[in-house]
Amino acid sequence: MIANTPKVPYYAVIFTSIRTSEENGYSAEAIRMFELVSEQDGFLGVESAREGIGITVSYWRDLESIKKWKENFEHSLIRDRGRAQWYQSFKVRIALVERDYQFEKQ
Amino acid sequence: MIANTPKVPYYAVIFTSIRTSEENGYSAEAIRMFELVSEQDGFLGVESAREGIGITVSYWRDLESIKKWKENFEHSLIRDRGRAQWYQSFKVRIALVERDYQFEKQ
Repeated sequence: MIANTPKVPYYAVIFTSIRTSEENGYSAEAIRMFELVSEQDGFLGVESAREGIGITVSYWRDLESIKKWKENFEHSLIRDRGRAQWYQSFKVRIALVERDYQFEKQ
Repeated sequence: MIANTPKVPYYAVIFTSIRTSEENGYSAEAIRMFELVSEQDGFLGVESAREGIGITVSYWRDLESIKKWKENFEHSLIRDRGRAQWYQSFKVRIALVERDYQFEKQ
């Protein structure tokens, strides 16, 4: 689903990744991460797709809520497993959404 | 591939879309769009994946280069076909990348 974000400004965290071939609990942890992030204060929505490369964009009210999510203990444990096992490489970009518009076919 | 963007700040255009079931030249035009965007002044890279939802993030030097790309004539023609045929809905978000970091497995 396209995330139903509020009026600008808000923040986007763009997480782009290349997976290793290791499964080792990845799918279950990905679902858990989705549940966990959805409960966070300031979380506005998420969009995700993998096709060779994985792109997950999460949306946030402000930098403070992004910081708190980064410091979340369970999140930090899952991140450590990600670095050790699931990801060959990734890039995180933190960006201020200044403008948005949408199209919906009638 | 993860886009090899320069030091912040730069801009991201996050294009999230739901396709119709209509093919009608979509794949060829998607390839053409990729060629065309790669030639634009100020273009820094692009990342794209579709898995139910499509997410394409293009990176740009500044707002001026994004504006010129939006006004590109061939791009505007393909966009019109996108609205008429290929997309059920989409959302475009223009965001200033303030910070980024990456991980590469050794």
